[in-house]
Amino acid sequence: MVRTLSLVLALAAAAGAQAADKPTRIPDAALKTANDLRESALKDPAAWDFVEGLTTEIGPRLAASENDAKAREWVAARFKALGFDKVWTEPVTYPKWVRRGEHAEITAPYPHVLSLLALGNSPGTPAGGISAEVVGFDTIDALKAAPEAGVRGRIVYVGPRMHASRDGGDYGRVGSPVRTQGPAIASRKGAVAYLLRSAGTDDNRLPHTGVTDFTGAMPIPAAALASPDADLLENVLKRGKPTTIRLALDCGIEGTYTGANVIGEITGRARPDEHFVMGGHLDSWDPGTGAIDDGAGIAIAAGAAHAIKALPQRPARSIRVVAFANEEAGLFGGKAYAAAHAKEIAKAVLGSESDLGADRIWKITATVTPDARDAIGQIAEAIKPLGVQYDAAESGHGGSDLSAVHAVGMAAVSLHQDATRYFD
Amino acid sequence: MVRTLSLVLALAAAAGAQAADKPTRIPDAALKTANDLRESALKDPAAWDFVEGLTTEIGPRLAASENDAKAREWVAARFKALGFDKVWTEPVTYPKWVRRGEHAEITAPYPHVLSLLALGNSPGTPAGGISAEVVGFDTIDALKAAPEAGVRGRIVYVGPRMHASRDGGDYGRVGSPVRTQGPAIASRKGAVAYLLRSAGTDDNRLPHTGVTDFTGAMPIPAAALASPDADLLENVLKRGKPTTIRLALDCGIEGTYTGANVIGEITGRARPDEHFVMGGHLDSWDPGTGAIDDGAGIAIAAGAAHAIKALPQRPARSIRVVAFANEEAGLFGGKAYAAAHAKEIAKAVLGSESDLGADRIWKITATVTPDARDAIGQIAEAIKPLGVQYDAAESGHGGSDLSAVHAVGMAAVSLHQDATRYFD
Repeated sequence: MVRTLSLVLALAAAAGAQAADKPTRIPDAALKTANDLRESALKDPAAWDFVEGLTTEIGPRLAASENDAKAREWVAARFKALGFDKVWTEPVTYPKWVRRGEHAEITAPYPHVLSLLALGNSPGTPAGGISAEVVGFDTIDALKAAPEAGVRGRIVYVGPRMHASRDGGDYGRVGSPVRTQGPAIASRKGAVAYLLRSAGTDDNRLPHTGVTDFTGAMPIPAAALASPDADLLENVLKRGKPTTIRLALDCGIEGTYTGANVIGEITGRARPDEHFVMGGHLDSWDPGTGAIDDGAGIAIAAGAAHAIKALPQRPARSIRVVAFANEEAGLFGGKAYAAAHAKEIAKAVLGSESDLGADRIWKITATVTPDARDAIGQIAEAIKPLGVQYDAAESGHGGSDLSAVHAVGMAAVSLHQDATRYFD
Repeated sequence: MVRTLSLVLALAAAAGAQAADKPTRIPDAALKTANDLRESALKDPAAWDFVEGLTTEIGPRLAASENDAKAREWVAARFKALGFDKVWTEPVTYPKWVRRGEHAEITAPYPHVLSLLALGNSPGTPAGGISAEVVGFDTIDALKAAPEAGVRGRIVYVGPRMHASRDGGDYGRVGSPVRTQGPAIASRKGAVAYLLRSAGTDDNRLPHTGVTDFTGAMPIPAAALASPDADLLENVLKRGKPTTIRLALDCGIEGTYTGANVIGEITGRARPDEHFVMGGHLDSWDPGTGAIDDGAGIAIAAGAAHAIKALPQRPARSIRVVAFANEEAGLFGGKAYAAAHAKEIAKAVLGSESDLGADRIWKITATVTPDARDAIGQIAEAIKPLGVQYDAAESGHGGSDLSAVHAVGMAAVSLHQDATRYFD
């Protein structure tokens, strides 16, 4: 699947980067090149080898960890091996959050050890943990509506369940707000800690972690329960007896760290300073394997660039592949890239990335200037044989890492991957 | 789903226990009762309440653990509350195996922490763990064929992958032999430890544990890797560089423990000493929730008995529901029951249990004396409207716990549940 994804990105990039004078209409020769790419790129194992190598030789890469640093060296070396003309890094500085361990148990009325993971940005508890009564809410809105008196001094639990879908829409509607906004809301009402049902559509005892945001609130320990453990807690709460939890999180922010975006470029033959940007983020959460979020994203972009590099003629414009630093804790790499390149934004012709796993792309959308709409239509035609629809009415911000550079003016194509199984 | 399962068992039990003089042909009145049960039992929440209560108020129940003892009291109390005429326990003694923790990491050529669980019966390692080079095999047959020289002093890894199916056949063909037989085979060739790919069809980082058997071999530390971790180890081994693992297991057998089978009986009106036996096992592995393996089994049987108890007339023969002790480590409860009741085996008319989760029953099979074949055919007719086939050509041993009492002469019906998702 990563090969096919890589191909879609290669077609989009080649078509965009081959464009002649103004990137408003793609010449026939460039479209012919894109069509040829459909054949050659499918045979290129570069994308698969990239993600297999990164996950095997490095593994998960929590931002600011030792593996994060090793991964930057690995990616830079691989970019060179893939034949990029230039490879460089650009510094990215952000708060360093570390996880050392977590433990939680229901202590009354029925003792149970719970499976959970601290959220990124969560402070730790005091060493022995904290114990408090739990108050449960079905939704974030119920928590918002709750009087402070019922929350103060308690551990808040919020437990809506996500449902799987192709557009992964429940993540934005349900999973993400409960995690990103819930802890701050609970904190402002005086809660001592916050637990949520993992943002996920699976039913196993592995929690799904992610970042939370305490802007404007006092940080409180916050963690995600595995879905069966959330079910259990709800069943206990349903019995109506006072329910207490002991929660011990050993984690927190420890100063700042300077990592880097790693950038590889295939230099264009005619207008080398104009470029197409694609990429993914190099960091990953620590409990996973670091493959689908988002090793695959960089691999897909690197594979696409490799296929383009192998063409008889290099593209008119440059192709940049960016392995972004620390997306998970707040798009730090994407923001640093946007800041560093704001002055040359007019030279960034188009951008696109993959950050929703490695399943099939079913739709593209784009946000470009009106005069470039035709060119996007042509790109859409070039990838249509791969079963990809084009929704001209919807906007596209390019992907999480690229959203910042898109916000300062870069045109973007969004590749919509099938997310039905992504949150399992 | 547990309600429907309960119903199937109730129909089978009622039809069996209602039989008149000789249980070779079921009278029409009894079949009428069984048909009425189809309506009433579907409305009875007893089975669901049982499993929800056991998992919420007790939780996982590793044999010989504190929760195991609490669960016996819980089940006895629930049996009484459900209106069983008699409730009693029978002692079961077995080796006490304890798990305190496990850790493993690939130390060369690429450092990775691995997610794993020690197998039941595995001894621990010395406190600091053991470090050794890994030798990998695709199948148990490849390990059997390997010369001792390539195994001695090493950690053996065996990694076949199970595929999901309705009959769960890969568990018997692939998953179970690699776990139950592999460690002893590796030990006899001089291996210092044994790792396997979890018996499971999922793709998450939760390992699946189970028991192993060191009969005739020196016990060596043995553990199951989560499936993605097994993939990772295979990818590392594939690179052909010497691969070392440090393995630390804190577990082992600590003397013996005496638990109990918990038995509830609805006493028959005409032939109270003749009885139908159904049940499940009370113990469960510790990392799960203790629901589907096999809290659901006892719940289904208890629910069936409850539905029968609610009939206008009690059955001619008695109905026994047994919550068996320690199935997971070697069918100890089932064997103890068989030994304790061997003398009255002629009074055990028929037995059946559920121990393959809580999904739909799609087939029944039976092993009974030839003159009772007709009666089984009648039971099959009674449950046919629920979509259950009857395969008269195949034998049925009743289920794991009942296999021992079946072996000493009790006729048995096997309820084949859909196992497509059971090993996820």
